[in-house]
Amino acid sequence: MDAISVIRAKRDRQELTGEQIDWVIDAYTRGAVADEQMSALAMAVYLNGMTRAEISRWTAAMIASGERMDFAALARPTADKHSTGGVGDKITLPLAPLVAACGAAVPQLSGRGLGHTGGTLDKLESVPGWRASLTNPEMMRVLDEVGSVICAAGDGLAPADKRLYALRDVTATVESLPLIASSIMSKKIAEGTGALVLDVKAGSGAFMKNVEDARELATAMVELGTDHGVRTVALLTDMNTPLGLTAGNALEVRESVEVLAGGGPADVVELTVALAREMLDAAGLPDADPAKALADGSAMDVWRRMVAAQGGDPDAELPRAREQHVVTAPASGVLTRLDAYAVGLSAWRLGAGRARKEDPVQAGAGIELHARPGDTVTAGAPLLTLHTDTPDAFGYAEAALEGAWDIAAPGTPHEPTPLILGRIG
Amino acid sequence: MDAISVIRAKRDRQELTGEQIDWVIDAYTRGAVADEQMSALAMAVYLNGMTRAEISRWTAAMIASGERMDFAALARPTADKHSTGGVGDKITLPLAPLVAACGAAVPQLSGRGLGHTGGTLDKLESVPGWRASLTNPEMMRVLDEVGSVICAAGDGLAPADKRLYALRDVTATVESLPLIASSIMSKKIAEGTGALVLDVKAGSGAFMKNVEDARELATAMVELGTDHGVRTVALLTDMNTPLGLTAGNALEVRESVEVLAGGGPADVVELTVALAREMLDAAGLPDADPAKALADGSAMDVWRRMVAAQGGDPDAELPRAREQHVVTAPASGVLTRLDAYAVGLSAWRLGAGRARKEDPVQAGAGIELHARPGDTVTAGAPLLTLHTDTPDAFGYAEAALEGAWDIAAPGTPHEPTPLILGRIG
Repeated sequence: MDAISVIRAKRDRQELTGEQIDWVIDAYTRGAVADEQMSALAMAVYLNGMTRAEISRWTAAMIASGERMDFAALARPTADKHSTGGVGDKITLPLAPLVAACGAAVPQLSGRGLGHTGGTLDKLESVPGWRASLTNPEMMRVLDEVGSVICAAGDGLAPADKRLYALRDVTATVESLPLIASSIMSKKIAEGTGALVLDVKAGSGAFMKNVEDARELATAMVELGTDHGVRTVALLTDMNTPLGLTAGNALEVRESVEVLAGGGPADVVELTVALAREMLDAAGLPDADPAKALADGSAMDVWRRMVAAQGGDPDAELPRAREQHVVTAPASGVLTRLDAYAVGLSAWRLGAGRARKEDPVQAGAGIELHARPGDTVTAGAPLLTLHTDTPDAFGYAEAALEGAWDIAAPGTPHEPTPLILGRIG
Repeated sequence: MDAISVIRAKRDRQELTGEQIDWVIDAYTRGAVADEQMSALAMAVYLNGMTRAEISRWTAAMIASGERMDFAALARPTADKHSTGGVGDKITLPLAPLVAACGAAVPQLSGRGLGHTGGTLDKLESVPGWRASLTNPEMMRVLDEVGSVICAAGDGLAPADKRLYALRDVTATVESLPLIASSIMSKKIAEGTGALVLDVKAGSGAFMKNVEDARELATAMVELGTDHGVRTVALLTDMNTPLGLTAGNALEVRESVEVLAGGGPADVVELTVALAREMLDAAGLPDADPAKALADGSAMDVWRRMVAAQGGDPDAELPRAREQHVVTAPASGVLTRLDAYAVGLSAWRLGAGRARKEDPVQAGAGIELHARPGDTVTAGAPLLTLHTDTPDAFGYAEAALEGAWDIAAPGTPHEPTPLILGRIG
């Protein structure tokens, strides 16, 4: 077996054999296949695709490149969620403690943000004292004692994926369905969860711009999970509008705490409860009542214990940016569109996101929305508040918002887009 | 400008702009574009192709990555030949001195063999004392004093091509028409010749297996030469049968000297004279008579002076392999097929070729043919003689010859394939 023959096979539109896939992933992990060979193979996969059998074997080989966690010793069934990423998507924060409060164990291994979408770990790091990096025994202890844990994935899970992802990032081979699906699922399956709910987003602020692409990706991932013995379900959700009323790290933690306190924006509550129901169903707990767990404070109780178990102070004041700038509505009428991508980009410019992996993020930076599509706005009244520690950024942030909204004449009827567009699994 | 956007454009089937091509080749030469990025781009080019304008600009950028030689100071017009490679293809050896004897200057920068095809420099190095590596001033002096020079291309010519060629070799992106055409032509144009004749081979022993592919490649290369001000012509020639009666380094030098002495196999003489006529025509010397220069010894005289000018002894005994093994005809009849690829592979196994760039070659190893298609053979009489210093290789060499010939019943009429299949330019 050699790298050139594997690359040539995919280049020539052949289906790779299981042996070829196992060999090339293992050899890449060992360094026997060079980056320049893997990137040529990734481009051939990008352009010629992979069959379901190839994607499944590729995923299995990436899982086999590292350790696989095992939660069989826990008393509770495990359930996990993965979102393909969006603007204002803080759902993991209320969701993990909510599902734990309903009886499942939630081992939520998360990542940091890059570009216009935020990362769960960046958000939680705005809580004073909170630590993202846990050893495996620490993680297991928090999960066992609290019921949920949100932490960074260790280097031992799917190391082949880690290396391949960095390579795809610099070789224009990120946006490939087989490579996206296998990358996400290899990490989630290696993580050892028994049930998995995918939140696959479609729209301007998401990776997939249209519902058809999102549905295809969701289907591939549900198949992969099922092939590997994980009960997997996907919801297709809208990401043309930001989720909730905040985009930014501490701003989103604050909103999440409101949801855990029984309040918060309706769309965040709707999606949190819908995903919780799917996770609990898939975990074999169909009778659990997540709406009740939000209302009676039990989800908030898990949140506080989870934050504290990772060194955070749940009562501490969250950081606020040093400077604020209010953007006012240019006309009176009905807000019919508020573009997720523009808001994400603008929040990024304000310091909430990073351009390179090494960059720091500002805890307080981001955007508050004072209206959502369907709301009536008044000329000169606040539409958005921009937050940053670096006021030079206001100009770039406002430029990113150009054309980001439509305001229709007062009284224009507005048909809201449904948040949940479909379900697969 | 950045590598990712250039890769993405070609991945998405866009035509690259001149600025994108100039930037990516220059940045690759400087090391600012990494090998893993260039190999992804090469795979995208392999699968999505390039337009004539893209290939032309790509070639120009590779030429601009290094020095460009200039023979304007010579008293004679320059002409050069390039063959896409075949089995027993020793034509450069008699051709360069022949064309010089007819009044043109022939700056023949050549390469070494890899795989089943031999390399001109490997062949000449079987002449005791002969040196392939010359400095630019040495090369110019030999060219000026003798009229022809055959030597290794310096590192200064098209360094981007050198790096890219090595990369393509390990990433299954060799067999791409735009990349082959630009690789060959960037070196030949940088070499500074005024006229260029391409011998584009088609058949089992060639890179291109069929005439249609060879014609497409030849057309692309003739266009490229023309675009860059080089008078360029291509002959399409058959490579289903080895050229002449020898494949191997010293064996081919011996046959070349026979041709220069006015003898030698008819097909080698035919192709040598045909290519010489094209080179002389393209160099503006249409009245020269290469057949006469072979017959009257003037080409042989240039050969002897050229070998001597590069340290070789034209009178020295050529090396012979230590061991010989005769393969006999299994039946009596008419030899109707003798496969070039099998003979090339067998000669390689005997030690005439190399598997990796670093490997040495045996000067004496190779194969002598005792019959060519159309000849009558007798059961038990010698068909081929295998030569090697490493007799363990005989088994592998015979295995490579399995199925390499067809012998038809005595008296079966045989229609010979024409050697020259077409002309472009």
